[in-house]
Amino acid sequence: MGKPFPQVQPGGSLILAWRVKDRNVLVVGGGEVGLSGFLTPVLLRAARALWTSLRLAKATNRFNRQVAAGRILNCLNADAQVTVVCPASGLNEEVAFRIAEKQVTHIDRLFEPADLDKADMVLVAIDDPAASTAIWKLCKEKRIPANIADVPPECDFYFGSVHRDGPLQVMVSTNGKGPRLAASLRRHIASQLPHNVGNAIETIGELRTRLRKVAPNHDDSQKRMRWMSKVSDTYKWEEMSELTEEDMENLLLFYPANKVPDVDILKSLRGPDNDMKKLDVFDGSFGFSVGS
Amino acid sequence: MGKPFPQVQPGGSLILAWRVKDRNVLVVGGGEVGLSGFLTPVLLRAARALWTSLRLAKATNRFNRQVAAGRILNCLNADAQVTVVCPASGLNEEVAFRIAEKQVTHIDRLFEPADLDKADMVLVAIDDPAASTAIWKLCKEKRIPANIADVPPECDFYFGSVHRDGPLQVMVSTNGKGPRLAASLRRHIASQLPHNVGNAIETIGELRTRLRKVAPNHDDSQKRMRWMSKVSDTYKWEEMSELTEEDMENLLLFYPANKVPDVDILKSLRGPDNDMKKLDVFDGSFGFSVGS
Repeated sequence: MGKPFPQVQPGGSLILAWRVKDRNVLVVGGGEVGLSGFLTPVLLRAARALWTSLRLAKATNRFNRQVAAGRILNCLNADAQVTVVCPASGLNEEVAFRIAEKQVTHIDRLFEPADLDKADMVLVAIDDPAASTAIWKLCKEKRIPANIADVPPECDFYFGSVHRDGPLQVMVSTNGKGPRLAASLRRHIASQLPHNVGNAIETIGELRTRLRKVAPNHDDSQKRMRWMSKVSDTYKWEEMSELTEEDMENLLLFYPANKVPDVDILKSLRGPDNDMKKLDVFDGSFGFSVGS
Repeated sequence: MGKPFPQVQPGGSLILAWRVKDRNVLVVGGGEVGLSGFLTPVLLRAARALWTSLRLAKATNRFNRQVAAGRILNCLNADAQVTVVCPASGLNEEVAFRIAEKQVTHIDRLFEPADLDKADMVLVAIDDPAASTAIWKLCKEKRIPANIADVPPECDFYFGSVHRDGPLQVMVSTNGKGPRLAASLRRHIASQLPHNVGNAIETIGELRTRLRKVAPNHDDSQKRMRWMSKVSDTYKWEEMSELTEEDMENLLLFYPANKVPDVDILKSLRGPDNDMKKLDVFDGSFGFSVGS
């Protein structure tokens, strides 16, 4: 069967846009150094484990300080309900700021297993490898997706370098080969994106929403899709980003005839007496000049 | 607290690289039309629901035909263990090809709830909305992350448009505002990426791996990170992608002194008698000419 189907390219990740809107994300650790794990008493009885954990903690402190704040922002940008469990003394400035602004809920103590009861996702950024592992295992028992910062084997998922421009998100992953390269490529990609591309996407989204109101029937879905494609293909990014509300309303008038006018025609329809012009279009008088 | 911390930009997704290597991904549906759900007998008793489901099925058939195959490839590219449950008659050409090639496991029957027992993730692409919803609910009871194709409210995560070049993955999401724009932007981004960027990333990853062998101590992690950053900053993408195995070995000789030579120096070290040259470097004779 030598069919021309795409070859498998192993070694990648499954990159997904996770829906966390209104879901509970539990962040364990607040970015600062301190007694971070709930297992500390246990560790005191296991001097060697403690010793190891303290040595590792020293190296990961600075890392986790930034990590907790960055991941909290990621989650807030995706409309999650974020709860941070961490003694107040262990909060870094940014996390403390988010708490003061009531952007996140704060539980002012060390982690306790019952904290997982309502969690849909768990992010751990503490400086205590033994405690981290214990939390990871609890999450796995309860089947809660989790990420233990800086411990790849104890992660269901990884974060990448994400560029954001309104509705547009571009995520760059090097699959662990070079986080610094990922950030550098993200900046390169951002600099090469069409100007105002976020606005353009917002406009197209808005146009689609309005179109569904104009032509709400399920049976129209093919026609709607074809017309939206035609719109995307007709206008440049820049042109799309500059469409006004009035332009969109005028553009929709061409939908029944499955036409998409040139942007110049759309602009010529603007004006204080646009109601008249809309009627002109509606009766077909611009029909001859619409594109493709 | 008017601190200059980044403002929250709501309305985005949490884009994550999901680790599915060796995990069990269950795909329900094989891309073709047919009796796709396990609930068909129940539906026969509920004529109205069946009618609705058949109408919707008609519209989604063509969609699901491509969806199952595309998602299976996504999962295989991320080294997942994929199982497709679907009667043989319901497999499309590409899915049938993957099964024949033993790239995926096939269960030749309709879905049964016990199929979920070993699943770490579930993707449903069948033409039966009622059955889809029932599978979604089972997944939620068992806390298995799931995606019901074309039913956004019954998804824990969404797929986006992904560019792949070796270890590099770039994912474009418009957060549902315009799938076609996402694909178009992905192509635009791909065309603007540095030539051979995938190779460059592979090289950097390989260098990091070799560096860990040369300097394996945990205490060296700061120094390793600093040196790797210096490497990334010193060479252009194109130069990085052209480094040979020999170049890498030579480059590593500069690590103890925390130096990174210009690419010309690295190239001048190539040759049949590179063992001698390596010794030259090792004794410091190139120390004067290394960059930044």
